[in-house]
Amino acid sequence: MSSPYALLFFLSLLLAFSVESKLQHIKWEIRYSNRSPDCFTKLSITINGLTPGPTITATEGDTLVIFATNGLFTENTSIHWHGILSLASGWDEGTREPFEYDEERSLVLNDWWHRRTYEQEIGLSSLNFNWIGEPDSLLINGRGRYNCSLAGPLDACNVTNPECSPAALAVMPGKTYRLRIANVASLSALNLEIEGHNMTIVEADGHYVKPVVVKNLNTYSGETYSVILKAEQSPSRNYWVVLNVVGRKPRTPTGTAILNYYPNNPLQQPPNDPPSGPLWDDTMYRLNQSKLIVSHPEYIQTPPRVPHRTILLLNSQSRIDGYLKWSLNNVSYFFPTTPYLIAMKKRLLHVFDPGHAPESYDYKSHDIWSAPKNPNATLGNGIYRLEFGSTVDVVLQNTNTLTPNNSETHPWHLHGHDFWVLGYGLGKFDPEVDTREYNLVDPIMKNTVALHPYGWTAIRFQANNPGVWAFHCHIEAHTFMGMGVVFEEGVEKVGKLPSSIMDCGESKLLRKP
Amino acid sequence: MSSPYALLFFLSLLLAFSVESKLQHIKWEIRYSNRSPDCFTKLSITINGLTPGPTITATEGDTLVIFATNGLFTENTSIHWHGILSLASGWDEGTREPFEYDEERSLVLNDWWHRRTYEQEIGLSSLNFNWIGEPDSLLINGRGRYNCSLAGPLDACNVTNPECSPAALAVMPGKTYRLRIANVASLSALNLEIEGHNMTIVEADGHYVKPVVVKNLNTYSGETYSVILKAEQSPSRNYWVVLNVVGRKPRTPTGTAILNYYPNNPLQQPPNDPPSGPLWDDTMYRLNQSKLIVSHPEYIQTPPRVPHRTILLLNSQSRIDGYLKWSLNNVSYFFPTTPYLIAMKKRLLHVFDPGHAPESYDYKSHDIWSAPKNPNATLGNGIYRLEFGSTVDVVLQNTNTLTPNNSETHPWHLHGHDFWVLGYGLGKFDPEVDTREYNLVDPIMKNTVALHPYGWTAIRFQANNPGVWAFHCHIEAHTFMGMGVVFEEGVEKVGKLPSSIMDCGESKLLRKP
Repeated sequence: MSSPYALLFFLSLLLAFSVESKLQHIKWEIRYSNRSPDCFTKLSITINGLTPGPTITATEGDTLVIFATNGLFTENTSIHWHGILSLASGWDEGTREPFEYDEERSLVLNDWWHRRTYEQEIGLSSLNFNWIGEPDSLLINGRGRYNCSLAGPLDACNVTNPECSPAALAVMPGKTYRLRIANVASLSALNLEIEGHNMTIVEADGHYVKPVVVKNLNTYSGETYSVILKAEQSPSRNYWVVLNVVGRKPRTPTGTAILNYYPNNPLQQPPNDPPSGPLWDDTMYRLNQSKLIVSHPEYIQTPPRVPHRTILLLNSQSRIDGYLKWSLNNVSYFFPTTPYLIAMKKRLLHVFDPGHAPESYDYKSHDIWSAPKNPNATLGNGIYRLEFGSTVDVVLQNTNTLTPNNSETHPWHLHGHDFWVLGYGLGKFDPEVDTREYNLVDPIMKNTVALHPYGWTAIRFQANNPGVWAFHCHIEAHTFMGMGVVFEEGVEKVGKLPSSIMDCGESKLLRKP
Repeated sequence: MSSPYALLFFLSLLLAFSVESKLQHIKWEIRYSNRSPDCFTKLSITINGLTPGPTITATEGDTLVIFATNGLFTENTSIHWHGILSLASGWDEGTREPFEYDEERSLVLNDWWHRRTYEQEIGLSSLNFNWIGEPDSLLINGRGRYNCSLAGPLDACNVTNPECSPAALAVMPGKTYRLRIANVASLSALNLEIEGHNMTIVEADGHYVKPVVVKNLNTYSGETYSVILKAEQSPSRNYWVVLNVVGRKPRTPTGTAILNYYPNNPLQQPPNDPPSGPLWDDTMYRLNQSKLIVSHPEYIQTPPRVPHRTILLLNSQSRIDGYLKWSLNNVSYFFPTTPYLIAMKKRLLHVFDPGHAPESYDYKSHDIWSAPKNPNATLGNGIYRLEFGSTVDVVLQNTNTLTPNNSETHPWHLHGHDFWVLGYGLGKFDPEVDTREYNLVDPIMKNTVALHPYGWTAIRFQANNPGVWAFHCHIEAHTFMGMGVVFEEGVEKVGKLPSSIMDCGESKLLRKP
């Protein structure tokens, strides 16, 4: 899946700690290749022929020079360093990690469609709304298994293709592993479970977590985690690594990989059926797991006690001229064709809405439990201008969609910052009551956080990174349908922009020969 | 099918003759829509939701103002007025047509794939060459019939979809019809036959033809014809209109439409099986029909008797660094990223090869009947610079491909000019002998002409249209693989170029704010 305006590349950057810093030169060729990650052959966007792309193994402090070539046919591409470009934290360098392990392994979790993004887009943006449907497969480290009997006789689908043999996670009996987990799905909340093994969550979005033991881990699109896994079960067999959709009614088969105890054959199937994971609609289970993720006691970054500004965002499904949309405080966001940063620096202020985006909604009387009686919203791309250095709270409030008795999960992702997760709740956020329950003692910092069905999520961040930053639901279809806002802070501190970036919308006219 | 660098829109411009000229304003919205022309639903490029696009009915001399909006996701688009922008001929205006008819009907003939162009492109440009395969369907006026049992159970394929009910050509018993035929296929030579009815060819590529009666008509990608059809058979039933692939071994079912005699039901199937058309590999049949197409005696434009220059082009399949290519005189053409016209006017002469493209090949000793022993070619984009006003002959010589006992058909199309078709032959062109047999008496003028397997085709044109003009095989895959050359003539007579077209390659840097 890729959005039309920017391709998002997730990186499993393996950060290790070391006193030496290195300079690494890396070449990436981005192009279409036929790949069969779930046995069904499909033209896919790849980096150096791979999807997911190649892993970069780096030590914090290293300098990476990445030379990317766009070999796509007509699409522009940009690289989003998801979660990497946040400001350096004080404890970041030279610190010992608060957990131990022998080796580490990556687990990249994904959902996968055989139809292309543009088909989804046409369906989402049609008056006759047409949902592309749930994923065809779930992939673990780029491998899944499609039921080829559902493909046509002329489709290239072959379950004996080695490209789709299940991913094997090789472990030595008795050793301890750090699993670096990234949910790079475009839609799905994914529950990861490893048969017969508990996992200890130790890190989330680059921040150390007070260790918490779980039987399985809920991950939301855009999140990263580290968990500790001990290979302490009987080494005479392999075990299932399973991936299940949660939060939406699953219509996609369980994704599987093999936890491969040495010296068993990595293709040897475990003797039992794969575990089926938690109930997909057990919101309380997921909400409670979210609440368990707090900062490791030795690595707490205490948030400012009081915000300078609080923005309440009502997340609702809506309609504009009959088109289905998502909106915040009844405004459905659309991207201006000229980039904000260039527009602000070059005084092209007419290219986006001059008014401020709405700060709040009628939180006292709004009924979050019912489909809205008046679902009409408006389009907009006005922004929130934040005072540089100020502390900002955002409370995300979920509601019923246009479908009775339905509320969806939204993983919200903020560019350019990490934020504190101050609290989650079920039901309607009450500023008088709920702010008193905020965790100001050991909140975790993250860049992506779940908003649970019918729930609320409160975050706090410092507006200390000069620029223009998106904050959006990380489900691609939702972003496309307007589920995002934009923050500006300290744009006057951004230096002179290079002429070479003047390429989109009216900025093209500013480009110097 | 569409090429990545320019979308080619064929227009069935219905030119009628009248003393009044009109101004017409037309709006085109180019966008992706789900269409099911052969019962299989596919995201398709459409104009105003239609493929083929809407017909423009105009009278020669009318002024058409066409406002096109590009609603594609990432692709640029350009409109090629195929065969329309040739210089006005002296006889063009106010002349009576040399044939009579009661009404006219359009027949747009096409080949259709369910997989997208990019999949074809990846296959064509891979070291491991992978041909997308023959068309899934043949379409008549945008309608065909796919065998849905070949589609997967999840594919939207439905033979009862009214979108793919066969095209009906309604006729009144006893009346005479002009059928305006356009072959808009990206690959296929298509034989059109109307059960029980002969056709009289009266026009080709906009020029009147000495009437010739045929049982069926061979058409090559990019060609247009008019034929006269008399509805003089028994009106108690309908008749088949059939389309068959010729020149390549057919793997696509016959395309069918209904010749519907009023007042029969247009959906009533004719009682017999559809005619099967001529043998696909009967080259002599097609060559002889090509030779029958000469100018109408009252509309002859006599060519200059002697050319100033003759260019011989050996059409061969070749390899470059292992990649499969097509080449002319051993040069496989590739497009420069900066347009030639801008490059020449702005003296950016380094953006294409400075040397001239090769004028000839070793025509005395070259063996056209065998796969080449040394298939290596080179890439190039040098051009032919023609003296303005000069007369130029081009002789296209076909050869055996890299496959033993195989030679393909290539429909060559020239931009910016009509040319005289001086002769066709089978075997090796011999300048000493064959030029004496040229038809200088009543050659037809065309803009697209077939080069038959193992044959040669000779054309003549006047370099009298200032600009830079492509001459290429109209099979999209062949053009993509290098089968084209470029002519320049009188570029100094082209006026100042508007800044607004400075958009591609280095020309972007010339754009003024």
